[in-house]
Amino acid sequence: MINIFEEKLKQMNLPDDLKLLNYEQCRRLCKAIRDILISTVSKNGGHLSSNLGTVELTLAMHRVFSSPSDKFVWDVGHQSYTHKILTGRLKDFHTLRKENGLSGFCKPSESEHDAFISGHSSNSVSAALGIASAMKMNGDNHHTIAVIGDGAATGGLSFEGLNNAGKSNTNLIVILNYNEMSISKNVGAFAKYLSNFRTKESYKKTKTIVERALDSIPVVGQPIKQTLKFSKDTVKNSIFRTTLFEDLGFEFIGPVDGHNIEELENALKAAKSLYKPVVVQVNTVKGKGYAPAEKNPGEYHGVSAFELKTGGSDASKCDSFSSVFGCEISRLAESDDRICAITAAMKYGTGLDIFAKAHKNRFFDVGIAEEHALTFAGGLASMGKLPVFAVYSSFLQRGYDQLLHDLAISNEHMLIGIDRAGIVGEDGVTHQGIFDISFLSTIPNVTIYSPSNYNELKACISKGLYDNSGIVAVRYPRGKEKVFSLKSDYISTDYELFKNNSDVLVITYGRLFNEVSFAFDKLKTDNKTIDVLKLINLNCTNEDIIKIIKSYKKVYFFEECYYNGSVSQRLKNEIHNLKCTAIYDFVPQASVESSLEHLGLSGNQIYKKLNSEIFI
Amino acid sequence: MINIFEEKLKQMNLPDDLKLLNYEQCRRLCKAIRDILISTVSKNGGHLSSNLGTVELTLAMHRVFSSPSDKFVWDVGHQSYTHKILTGRLKDFHTLRKENGLSGFCKPSESEHDAFISGHSSNSVSAALGIASAMKMNGDNHHTIAVIGDGAATGGLSFEGLNNAGKSNTNLIVILNYNEMSISKNVGAFAKYLSNFRTKESYKKTKTIVERALDSIPVVGQPIKQTLKFSKDTVKNSIFRTTLFEDLGFEFIGPVDGHNIEELENALKAAKSLYKPVVVQVNTVKGKGYAPAEKNPGEYHGVSAFELKTGGSDASKCDSFSSVFGCEISRLAESDDRICAITAAMKYGTGLDIFAKAHKNRFFDVGIAEEHALTFAGGLASMGKLPVFAVYSSFLQRGYDQLLHDLAISNEHMLIGIDRAGIVGEDGVTHQGIFDISFLSTIPNVTIYSPSNYNELKACISKGLYDNSGIVAVRYPRGKEKVFSLKSDYISTDYELFKNNSDVLVITYGRLFNEVSFAFDKLKTDNKTIDVLKLINLNCTNEDIIKIIKSYKKVYFFEECYYNGSVSQRLKNEIHNLKCTAIYDFVPQASVESSLEHLGLSGNQIYKKLNSEIFI
Repeated sequence: MINIFEEKLKQMNLPDDLKLLNYEQCRRLCKAIRDILISTVSKNGGHLSSNLGTVELTLAMHRVFSSPSDKFVWDVGHQSYTHKILTGRLKDFHTLRKENGLSGFCKPSESEHDAFISGHSSNSVSAALGIASAMKMNGDNHHTIAVIGDGAATGGLSFEGLNNAGKSNTNLIVILNYNEMSISKNVGAFAKYLSNFRTKESYKKTKTIVERALDSIPVVGQPIKQTLKFSKDTVKNSIFRTTLFEDLGFEFIGPVDGHNIEELENALKAAKSLYKPVVVQVNTVKGKGYAPAEKNPGEYHGVSAFELKTGGSDASKCDSFSSVFGCEISRLAESDDRICAITAAMKYGTGLDIFAKAHKNRFFDVGIAEEHALTFAGGLASMGKLPVFAVYSSFLQRGYDQLLHDLAISNEHMLIGIDRAGIVGEDGVTHQGIFDISFLSTIPNVTIYSPSNYNELKACISKGLYDNSGIVAVRYPRGKEKVFSLKSDYISTDYELFKNNSDVLVITYGRLFNEVSFAFDKLKTDNKTIDVLKLINLNCTNEDIIKIIKSYKKVYFFEECYYNGSVSQRLKNEIHNLKCTAIYDFVPQASVESSLEHLGLSGNQIYKKLNSEIFI
Repeated sequence: MINIFEEKLKQMNLPDDLKLLNYEQCRRLCKAIRDILISTVSKNGGHLSSNLGTVELTLAMHRVFSSPSDKFVWDVGHQSYTHKILTGRLKDFHTLRKENGLSGFCKPSESEHDAFISGHSSNSVSAALGIASAMKMNGDNHHTIAVIGDGAATGGLSFEGLNNAGKSNTNLIVILNYNEMSISKNVGAFAKYLSNFRTKESYKKTKTIVERALDSIPVVGQPIKQTLKFSKDTVKNSIFRTTLFEDLGFEFIGPVDGHNIEELENALKAAKSLYKPVVVQVNTVKGKGYAPAEKNPGEYHGVSAFELKTGGSDASKCDSFSSVFGCEISRLAESDDRICAITAAMKYGTGLDIFAKAHKNRFFDVGIAEEHALTFAGGLASMGKLPVFAVYSSFLQRGYDQLLHDLAISNEHMLIGIDRAGIVGEDGVTHQGIFDISFLSTIPNVTIYSPSNYNELKACISKGLYDNSGIVAVRYPRGKEKVFSLKSDYISTDYELFKNNSDVLVITYGRLFNEVSFAFDKLKTDNKTIDVLKLINLNCTNEDIIKIIKSYKKVYFFEECYYNGSVSQRLKNEIHNLKCTAIYDFVPQASVESSLEHLGLSGNQIYKKLNSEIFI
């Protein structure tokens, strides 16, 4: 059954031929797409819940509009799998999130149907407004459609976009995909505001019926409609209540049942006919059509490969840098009531669920709002609290000015747990955590730690909270610590030197210590030896350490960081013969292992480089 | 008259004694404060219109609340002069914006009455929520009051703050200072939304009167009030219309006449009594009480010293880097309809008023929303437009992630005019443009030009628009070009080498070329000579140029940039004997000349350094 549909889809002229289907065929197609989504994500990992929620919406969009003449901008892009399948990418869909395969987000270089890049939340309305404005200047009457979830809508950039779009006089349609959650359960007043609409569907239907009826009465219909607008019951209040979006200058249509294709098409056709900025609210169910995901959409937001029947994930529940961070902050908070924890809609991903459970009153999930998270932390810190913000490296990029202006200038003290630091793998170019060291280094008085195992992580947290001042960042990769032969019982928060009487020194930090250890072991089996300097405090390149480094004849530095602004780049100013291997461009999707291999940062590549350059 | 009041103020126990004044005394005090504001700003420069607009509001705040137990957070802080005067800083007020003097913004290190740092727009609600949350955790029942203008409220960070604050259950009061403009005339739907309230003052008064009356009727009052809420006329609609803020979880009070102390106090007392998040809308007139500023508040937003009687500014209308940038973009746009210009509420400051006038349909003032400006530019660029965004260096910091994610990854082509690059002088630490090179360098594929005169500026604009790809930044200081003896008729966009057969090379770029030229002249009179390498393209440190530099025995680099991420830091990797003078920490307020002197970057200091280190 799946295969038949897959074959049919592959033969269709997509997306145009979708307009030829009847509703029954549409429903069967949606079922088939869901099967493809579940089977592919179960193999490749990726975003499941959000994609299962937008199958009908995507189909309806492609039947009402004509991509690529009409432009689709998917916010975050983690709900665009159906769009990919329906725009000629089914044959490559098995390569989703694989090296050289389809991206898990939207990517203009992948298809002309992806109008704008996605990956980071909340950019869709602004980008779509840019596109719609260009169309207007070109005298092009096509539409630009931004699709944004209620989670992404809490990001300030969305508001800036909406504030500019409402009065823009462009053919911009914003589809607000309301599914009652972003990644964690949604937070904030805005979500509450939207949920009001959700409960008023019955009124909405009443409104439509009444209005349609009145529109059909020639002479007196309109006056009655006008009168009705000022009638005195609560039903009227619900029906004609002005929404925030209307206040901002948009026409508002909705809420629409996001799993009813006919209703969706009617709403989108109405929006299309207006030729002005419109918000269409579509209510969807995350995980729709796959019982385990419907039941627990948060767990199936971004998943690793999992078992199809039971929904059991093969991602183990064991320790990870994230959960160790969460546990340790929670443990310290037991005896220190100044500690507060903040997340931007990543309670589970960052391990802060542990803290949230234990210290409810000191836990703040601010929604997708990294800028607010940091300035809010500044406010807490100014009152003597010890705020801790756990955030993915690539999303901390959003808070550059808040770090500099609201924290660093006043030297407010806070701890940032930078999760997903370094190469992230399959999420690809938009999610690589390779810039945090570089941009944090351009801000005065920031301390950066990069522990390579759990014990160091815990030591850095304590040191950062209690011995340092100002902004302290502790960065760590996704996943678990590894244990290699290069180890000691000594736990440092500065550096650790593994001496073997070699005249070759290899410097590294964080996760790459694993790779260097691997190379060390492999060299050892060849009876070749290197000394290894592991940095933990990345600001620790003081006179002492320079002296140590200068005592070596040959010095290599391997780091998982963009070279401009990197530790090795700064160190090279002192150590002129330093040979640096870092990252020199954006890094595309591939497994972490493969990426490190390509970048010359895997244990194997480090071994090869040292072997060829030194031990010839 | 002024002096009498000044003397009295100096003898009062401020701000507590303000509560002892009667309303007549309050009005006289406000008059006296306005006189102080006008006379001080006319001498020292600074923000006039915004401060004249908030005199009564500030006095009322200090009479209703008790700072510093209650915390005042002023957004931007350019309206906090009265607050400074009323919290014991009158005696130092003549030092406003001077070296070692009072800051033109709020600064916790200056006074315990400045609860949080300000300077950059839109951070007040988030910071105040942090403070209020800390108070709540401490069991402290005092209030936190954020004061934010309608201009600053268009920044996305404000929305993130409001979205989190409404449901926070803290004693947070947000005073929305509505004055119908930010810096340029306000833009966007949000401003339009607020202006609705402004016209409904009469209804508001009606509402208050009716409600008060009903409240005083014991048994039947409340039911009537309830009934009234569902009555059927338009007056009701205006009175009981739910505001956006109520939708977001706040109580809403207003609009209040911002120049009527009694009305202000009643509103603030009401807000205080609620012990929950409240928005109070206060309508004020920018420039209130000074005719030239009332008439043209935009011109008196941030001013240099000016003549008191006529209001004539001594800032000449001659050419400046900003206006040359505006003229050139406008000129190029005449023959290239792909060029679009964007400003974030700085149409005049950035010289884009020239473009706006000539190419209305391609000009976009997005309000205080730098993130949106960049992502919107990305949308335009993706459609083949040539977007140009003119923005102050310190405010571009807000768009780091948008530059990286929405532009650089897809290599979208746009031109950024970075105005106020380098030391800005009296605006101080929050406004220094010393980080743009550093943070832009951490993003792959960004080209940065730093012209030192108008001809180079124009050449860089053309080169950037038509010969480069990706993000191109052209940075220039506030003010005018200078002409020195080191000049040539040759206009380069790469570098220019001034050869004098010296074995000493001095490298610099941008405005500092003036200072190096000064040093060159001064050395010349001593019969000492240096070669000078002026960089224009800051990415131009290729093999050719390295070869040139390496041919010198002694090499000095002077740059007006934070050292980490600077050009000289990168160059030092190749030129090991390079002696760098850059900026190593935040830079406090002082005149540009004095700042450069302190930093060792003035012509005089450069002369001294070279003289002492080389020509001994």
